[in-house]
This record gives sequence, structure tokens and C-alpha cells, in this order.
Amino acid sequence: MPYQSILEKIHAEIVPTLPQGRVADYIPQLAHVDPHKFGMAVCDTSGGIACVGDAAERFSIQSISKVFTLTLAMQLEGERLWQRVGREPSGTSFNSLVQLEYEQGIPRNPFINAGALVITDMVLSHLGEAKLALRELARKLSGGVDVCYNPAVAASEAGRGYRNAALANFLKSFDNLRNEPADVLDAYFHHCALSMSCTELARAFLYLASHGQHAGTALITPSQAKYINSLMLTCGTYDAVGDFAYRVGLPGKSGVGGGIVAVMPGLFSVCVWAPGLNASGNSLAGTRALERFSELTGQSIF
Amino acid sequence: MPYQSILEKIHAEIVPTLPQGRVADYIPQLAHVDPHKFGMAVCDTSGGIACVGDAAERFSIQSISKVFTLTLAMQLEGERLWQRVGREPSGTSFNSLVQLEYEQGIPRNPFINAGALVITDMVLSHLGEAKLALRELARKLSGGVDVCYNPAVAASEAGRGYRNAALANFLKSFDNLRNEPADVLDAYFHHCALSMSCTELARAFLYLASHGQHAGTALITPSQAKYINSLMLTCGTYDAVGDFAYRVGLPGKSGVGGGIVAVMPGLFSVCVWAPGLNASGNSLAGTRALERFSELTGQSIF
Amino acid sequence: MPYQSILEKIHAEIVPTLPQGRVADYIPQLAHVDPHKFGMAVCDTSGGIACVGDAAERFSIQSISKVFTLTLAMQLEGERLWQRVGREPSGTSFNSLVQLEYEQGIPRNPFINAGALVITDMVLSHLGEAKLALRELARKLSGGVDVCYNPAVAASEAGRGYRNAALANFLKSFDNLRNEPADVLDAYFHHCALSMSCTELARAFLYLASHGQHAGTALITPSQAKYINSLMLTCGTYDAVGDFAYRVGLPGKSGVGGGIVAVMPGLFSVCVWAPGLNASGNSLAGTRALERFSELTGQSIF
Amino acid sequence: MPYQSILEKIHAEIVPTLPQGRVADYIPQLAHVDPHKFGMAVCDTSGGIACVGDAAERFSIQSISKVFTLTLAMQLEGERLWQRVGREPSGTSFNSLVQLEYEQGIPRNPFINAGALVITDMVLSHLGEAKLALRELARKLSGGVDVCYNPAVAASEAGRGYRNAALANFLKSFDNLRNEPADVLDAYFHHCALSMSCTELARAFLYLASHGQHAGTALITPSQAKYINSLMLTCGTYDAVGDFAYRVGLPGKSGVGGGIVAVMPGLFSVCVWAPGLNASGNSLAGTRALERFSELTGQSIF
Repeated sequence: MPYQSILEKIHAEIVPTLPQGRVADYIPQLAHVDPHKFGMAVCDTSGGIACVGDAAERFSIQSISKVFTLTLAMQLEGERLWQRVGREPSGTSFNSLVQLEYEQGIPRNPFINAGALVITDMVLSHLGEAKLALRELARKLSGGVDVCYNPAVAASEAGRGYRNAALANFLKSFDNLRNEPADVLDAYFHHCALSMSCTELARAFLYLASHGQHAGTALITPSQAKYINSLMLTCGTYDAVGDFAYRVGLPGKSGVGGGIVAVMPGLFSVCVWAPGLNASGNSLAGTRALERFSELTGQSIF
Repeated sequence: MPYQSILEKIHAEIVPTLPQGRVADYIPQLAHVDPHKFGMAVCDTSGGIACVGDAAERFSIQSISKVFTLTLAMQLEGERLWQRVGREPSGTSFNSLVQLEYEQGIPRNPFINAGALVITDMVLSHLGEAKLALRELARKLSGGVDVCYNPAVAASEAGRGYRNAALANFLKSFDNLRNEPADVLDAYFHHCALSMSCTELARAFLYLASHGQHAGTALITPSQAKYINSLMLTCGTYDAVGDFAYRVGLPGKSGVGGGIVAVMPGLFSVCVWAPGLNASGNSLAGTRALERFSELTGQSIF
Repeated sequence: MPYQSILEKIHAEIVPTLPQGRVADYIPQLAHVDPHKFGMAVCDTSGGIACVGDAAERFSIQSISKVFTLTLAMQLEGERLWQRVGREPSGTSFNSLVQLEYEQGIPRNPFINAGALVITDMVLSHLGEAKLALRELARKLSGGVDVCYNPAVAASEAGRGYRNAALANFLKSFDNLRNEPADVLDAYFHHCALSMSCTELARAFLYLASHGQHAGTALITPSQAKYINSLMLTCGTYDAVGDFAYRVGLPGKSGVGGGIVAVMPGLFSVCVWAPGLNASGNSLAGTRALERFSELTGQSIF
Repeated sequence: MPYQSILEKIHAEIVPTLPQGRVADYIPQLAHVDPHKFGMAVCDTSGGIACVGDAAERFSIQSISKVFTLTLAMQLEGERLWQRVGREPSGTSFNSLVQLEYEQGIPRNPFINAGALVITDMVLSHLGEAKLALRELARKLSGGVDVCYNPAVAASEAGRGYRNAALANFLKSFDNLRNEPADVLDAYFHHCALSMSCTELARAFLYLASHGQHAGTALITPSQAKYINSLMLTCGTYDAVGDFAYRVGLPGKSGVGGGIVAVMPGLFSVCVWAPGLNASGNSLAGTRALERFSELTGQSIF
């Protein structure tokens, strides 16, 4: 069955389940998103694209941006990156300070908030303009020339960002930030406020299904693409990575805006969006849609 | 390059590094194993086998046995199994009691000690003779008709097994064991004391590279094989699953006897043995050998 | 106002509140105690005694016995005792294993279960017959020549004692028990199963109000009496020591049988019994009675 | 032996031990204090005062100020105060975030940093000018009309205060601060930067030995004085309250500037200063001096 038919089948199945999720409500810009939205898009490595539902509508990509930031940091720092952040699943909530205290300020991985702050700090040290750099990367990879930050989201995140401010100051107290917490937080909150659509995100993640190649040139090395995929698998979906690997069987990264991007190396990248979340903070319908996609295509890394 | 040549190349590279690992010393039967041992074996799904070094010598498979126990429990319990054990990486040591206390006696996954004790308890409840059942499964899958438990190892494990006894009693205090702790521990210590060689283990794990098929019949369903592979990837190598996925890129299960088995779904199963461990409790040279195997074959799930 | 009048006033006030507590129900012998029981007794250092209600009825002293065991261990080990157990409040539940894991098998203090197991182990190493020794001490101090263990309680504790068995095995795994866990647990469960009355307990604790003197001779040194009082204040009432010090202002030790003993150094010892517990595991009405006793006598160490 | 002779005896004993402590070095103003300083002063409730060594020299009182802030908050909030902060020892480091996360933003007690930030927030909400109010209280109680903040210390604390900023933001994320973190931190850092001498502090704490009376009028109620003493005993000396109670046997509050104030209710207040700290963050020689003072006077609450 071609991807387009599969997406349509999934769409029909999933729509009735949309009300079961719970939309993130810690900032008004997320709280007011329509919980009935659902979009899904697949890009295959030969360039074909299929999409369904609200796949063209932009949403707040939130933590999905952490993959872009990590990609920048890998380009800039290479393997030295791992001196300041681990690569193990945390076994705790994405915004926990507990493990950070026990492990002396070294975040467990680049995808929990603390780790993403350290990664952002690295990019900031190299480029100064981390916000600009990330937006340019997102534009280049997605082909969306007008992809940009939602300033209201960034402002709301900052206004309610006491937990992240606690993390940033905590990291700084362990000397694991080079820049001031306020500057790191400003970049971080903007990164989370990128608005992109399913089709844009599926296109943007195609380099991870293509051994690091984007539009015929190497964005990162094949090893680095493999590394990022492994990190998404073991750390990309909060404290539900085991469940996601079990059910979906693909490396993926989620955001509290309800988006999830997943990758089948060598074959395709896929993005789904459904704003209602499950207890782990991943899109409830989105996880189910990807599980069905894996079943219907017979594709999984396992 | 055929597998045999690759194994020989790896063998030559790895041998000089063997003294860097540290042999497990908590029981004399492990402490006295020669740290210069090194064996490796690959089985491909078409039946071919390649091996090198001490691949025919039996060693204590220890936690690798947890995959067999889980396979039995999946056959017996199916998805109900997940009511009593989670499927998330723990983010802590394999024998930690901390998370078990915070999470009210539900172990994080079937491969940490607490989880394996619960799985053993399930098998015990169904079969009574859990020791016999596991040995028969190991014999059938490996083709090693005389595969058996090392009674001295089992006795030593029991004699020094206060930490596992603490775990079993703790689980029982949360009502997450149906049988008496002493009975569960007896089965568990025996399972860990299975002696098998690299070639036997590579053969035995081939069903996980073959969608659950063993010798032309379904041992477990294709979904269950996928599930076990995902669990090995996210939980199979102690608190180093992220690093193992990053470097090796294959689902795998390790034991403190120095063995590691890994699987490339659809293609092959591979087993390596080198008794010296790294700080995470995985075979140091074994991890490196698998990393090289992944590089030289160009095979990885990512 | 003399103590007898004060006790009568308190008795009248407290009786209506007795149903608010919740009787311990983890073993039938405790679960079936009448929640309307209330007794209280005071001994002053000049030998006077006052009592009210069910002060002459024996109940299961449970953790109050830990003071007797510590007294024995101090006689036997002196200051060396502190090499194997700390003297800080735990900030966690009395039967937690978490801190024990983080602090490598050294219990925080002698009054949490783990610490009492280590103390019991010391007594066992010195005397062999720890059960006999403790009973004799309780008889001598209380004047109750037939004070003894309730065998049904000891048997029930053992039968449901998986959590304590977990603690004992955990301590053993850190080499902080010299004897086998089963032997330490047997002594420990018996100690908790001592049956004594309020008047017996008030008499028995008089040495702690009398600089270590019992019947004119030194049971322990004045410093040791001071030490035990300080330990009761900082560690004697589970994770509610701050609240108990704030409200009652006396060093005290409680048990889940509903008894609490407190001491005003130089002046008196007092014991109250009311089986209903509060959320911290201390007698709800008993704590309130002691608070009133402190108010009405104007006596507090603060 | 009169207090003056006792202080002189202690002075002679302690001086040789001064180099064993380790001066706090996280800000230069503390790091550069002469480790050979030693002062001690006692005020009895009838107005007599004895002092020795550098008792007239002002030092940074640091966390001793938390007792003044709590006194203000008790005057302003009464028992409502306990809705936002606990009164139990923490069992962890004074600046830990772990327990705060597990206990949902309610600090364990008013003397750990998190608790003191909440208390400061209360004072700020009532008085606006928390800095002024605390300085005035310190002046009134001590009789030191020119007692004031050391601005260099306050600035250094702020400049290095990432850990406290983490705590304040963390509390705010749990909605347990009413004011902005920056404002609370500013007041808090100033409070810690009060400079006072041993004689001034001994005089200032006399109300806690006098049932809340200062200069013949009630500063707080007798119950409140008792409450604060109990809190100092159970929570006043970081994660060494058990050891301090065991050895010294008096309610006390320490600061990383090397000062410790202790109180014998009804009899005296005593302050000691020796900048070198022990591993728990309390003055090493100061603790020893108070232990000797308790021994030589025969005074202890136990």
C-alpha cells in the first residue's frame, strides 16, 4: 500500500480518538490550540511526499527543536560535546533536577531540558547568534523560507519559565554553562517557539534518514546521523522511550506542542501532529498513529 | 568482506586490549576466569556461522539468561506481563532499590534484577519447574544438548546473594511476587548460572533476528520478537544503553560473565565473550568488538 | 497542679478524640486492638507515680524497644557503635531503603528500622542471646517480673516481615551485619513484640531522666543518658521529629502499637498509650496528650 | 566556675586546633578571613556577659540571620507560616533541590536555604522593605546601633548565587513564592551579609533564653520562643543536627561564616566564632568549644 493510502487509513482511524488526549496548558498559546487538529506527513528518501489532514498547518514544535540544536552542536563541537552532557536515558521526568544534583551538573542526555540548555550554551558560545542560526537551519532543511519563531510563545515560555530558570541556574552553579543563564534561556525559549508544519518537519528530518545528507551534500557525517538516531531512540520521547520503542519501533522526537517526528533510516522520515498529550507528555494520538504506520508499512528498526 | 574475515580482523585488533577490562570478582567462579579469553560468533539468518578465538568455550551467561526467561514469560503471559513490570530504562544501577521504592514495587523493566525476579516469579507460577524449562529452552535454541547450569556458580550466587535477596523481599513486600522469595531466588540464581559458548548463544538468539522463528516454526510472534529487540535496545546493557546504542547501534544483552549477544533484525545474531568488564558492567572488549563489527559490516539499526 | 490531676484532666479531654487515629493493621494482633484504649503514666525522679485510664494494661511496645536495644549496645560497644550507624535524622520513612543505598549501607540512626537491625546485630554478636538479654533488661528496669514477648506478635511480624527482610539483606550486602539476616531478624521481631504497660514503661525509662541511674546504680553513664535523650529528640518519632519537638518539646520514642515514652531530664518520665496513629505513624491522641502535658506542667526542654 | 573562667579555659584549649577547620571559599570575602580568629561570648538571663578572644570583632553571620527572619515571619504570619514550609529536618544538604522536587516545592524547614527563601518572601510580602526590617531587628536585639550589611559580601553572594537562584526559581515554579525570585534573592543575600560580633549575637539571642522577652517586653510569645528553640535543635546546624545535639546538647544555629549561636532556655545564650568549618559546614572549633562549654558548665537540655 502506498504511503498516501496508509496515511488516509490512519487518519480515519485516529480522528475519533483525538479527544482522549490532554492539550498542554502551561501557556495560553498551547492551551488554546484546537484539540481536534491532526496532520501527518511522510517523506521518502527518493523525494516523494505524502500528507493528510492538517499537515500543512504550522504548530509549536517545542522540544523537537532540540534535534536541530544538537545537530548544530555536533557540527561545532564533534565528540567533545560528550564531556558536558551524557547520552543515557534519564529514567525521570524531562524537567527533573534530582538526577542533575546526584550527577553533579552533567545532564543525562541532550534531549531532557537540562541537556538541551547545555547544548544551547555550546551553540551560543560558538555562534553568538544561536537564535538566528537555528532558524536558518530549520528553513534550509524544511524548505520553508518563512519558518520563524512565534514571539508570543517565546514570551509566554519566558514568563512561565521558572522551572527552566531553575535548571539553568543549577547548571551554572556546577559550572556547566559558559554563558549567563538569562542568555541561554532566551535562546532556548526561542528554539522551542519555532512554528513548523508536518510537511516541513518531515522534510527537515529527511537528513537523518539519509545518512546525514541534505539536498545532495553532507550536513553531518553518516556516523553523526546514526548517533542522533540512536539518541532519539533511547532519549527522544521523555520518560516513555521504552514504550515508544516497543510500540512504534522507530527513533523519534516529540514535543509538548503535540508533534512527533520519527525516522526509518534509509527509507523515510515521518511527522505527526495531534495536540492532545498522554501522561508522559507525548502526543497520544500521534504515538498511536505512528504505531499504526509501523504496523501498516511493516517498517521498524527492530 | 565475509563475516569470517571480519571476525579475524577484530580478533587481532582486540586481543591487545583485553587486559584493560576488570573481571567480575564478587564470586570466585567469575573472579578466576582468565581475562585473556576472547571469543566471537555470528549466525546469519540463512544458517551460516562464523567464529573466532574461544567461541566454543562455555562461560557463565549470567544476565543474558534474562532474555530467555522473558521469552518464556511472553509465551505464558502475553501482554498481561506488563501489569507487573515496566518497559522503560531505569537510569540507575541494575541492582538499585531506590526506584523500586519510589515506584511502589513495579520494576522499571524485565532486564534489571528486580524485573527479572518478577519475570522469574511468573514463569515459576505457570510451570513450577522454572529451572528445567529454561534449560530446555536454552538447549533447544542453541542446539547444545548438554547445556546446563554450573552448580558451583549457582551456589556461590546464592551464598553471596544478599542484594538480590533484598530485592526479592522488597518486591514481596509490595505484593509483586506470588511465590516465596527463596523459591524465586533459587530459580533466578540457577538461570544466571547457565554455561554456554559464543556459538551456542549466537545460534540461540537467531530467533530474534528471524521474526520469532526457530527452525522453521514460530517460537514467538513477529511482534514479540520486535518487542524483545526493542527492550534489549532500551534496557539490555545496564545503565549504558545509550552509549551502547550510540556506538554499536544494535539491540543487545550483556552479562557480568563478559558475554554480550546482539541482533541485527533480518540479518544476523552475534555473540562476543571477553571477561573483563567496563565501569558499567558490560564487557569492555566485547563492546568494542561489536562496535567494530558494526563499522566493518556497515550494519546497524540506525 | 499535681501530676495526677493533670493526667485526669488530659484523660477527659482526649477520650473524645480517640476515634480520629488509625490503628496499625499490617498484622492482626495490632489491627484488633481496641481503638478506644487510652492510658498514661508519669514517674518522677523521686519515685512518685501517677497514672490514668488503661495505664496498667500491656500493649505491644514495638519500636519503643529500640531504646532498650540501644542501651544494651552502648553498654557493650561504647562510642565504637557509631562506626556502623549514624546519628542524624533521616528525613525519610522509617523503613526506607533509599538513603541506605545512597549512603552505602550505613543507616542514618539507631531508631529507623535499618539502624535498629544493625544495633541488634551488635548485641547478638556480643551476647548470643539477644532476646533473653533484652527481656531481662526490660524486666529489671520496669519492675515487671513477668514482662515477656508476645509470641503471636513475633510470629506475625516474621510472617509479614518482607520489608525488614529486605533491609536486613541489604545491610548484609554492604557488610554491615556480622550475623546472618535470619538471626538478626528473629531477635528484632521479638524485641518489637515485647508487651508492657504505661506504668511499666514510664518506670523503665526513668533512668533517662536520672542521668543513667537505675535504683541507685549507674546503668549507663550520665553522658550516655544525655546521648540517648538527644537521639530520641532528633530521631525518635519517625519522620515527625520536628513536629514532635515543636509541639511536645521533650525527647521521646514512639511505636506503632500506639505507645510513646517521653523524658524530662532531671524531672520525670512519662508514657502514653492510644492505639490510633497519625499519618506519621505516631499515636495521634498520644502526641496530643503529651503536648497537653507539656503545656499544663509548663515543662519542656525548650 | 563562673562563665568568664570557663571561656578562658576553652579559649586556651581551642586555639591550637583552629587550623584544622577549612574556611568557606565560595566568595572572596569569606575566603580571606583569618582562620586563627576565635571569639566567644555568653549572656545570662540576668544580664551578665562574659567574653573572650575576638568576641568584639564583627563577622559575616550568614545563616544565623535565618533565625531573625523567622522571628519576623512568626510575628507577621503566626501559625499560618507552616502552610508553606515544613518543620522537619531534611536529612540532606542545606542547598539540595532533591527533596524540594519530591515534596512539590514545600521546603522541609525554615533553616535550609529553600525554607529561608520562602520565609524571606513572606516578610517581603508584609513589609516590602525586608532588608531594612531585619537590620533594625538585629540592631534592637543586639544593642549594636551601627550593625549593618556588608555590601561587598551581599554583592559577592549575588554574583555567585546561581544555586540559590536555582532554588528560588524552583520554588516559584511550584507557586511557593509570591514575589519575583530576583527580589527575594536580593533580600536573602543581604540578610546573609549582616556583620555582627559574638557579643552582639549573644545579646541578640537572649530573647530565646528568656521566653521571648527582650528588654522587659515580649518580642514573641513564650510558645514561639520554645518553637524557635525546637527548630534550631532539629534543623539549625545543617545535616549535622543529630551530631550537634549529641555532643553539645543545646539548640543552636550556625552559619558558614564560622559563627554558631546556642541557647540554654532560662539560663543563657552563647555565641562562638571560628572561621574554619568541618565537613558539615559548621564551625569545627566552634562546635568543639560549645561541646566543652556544655561539659564544663554541666548545662544541656538533655
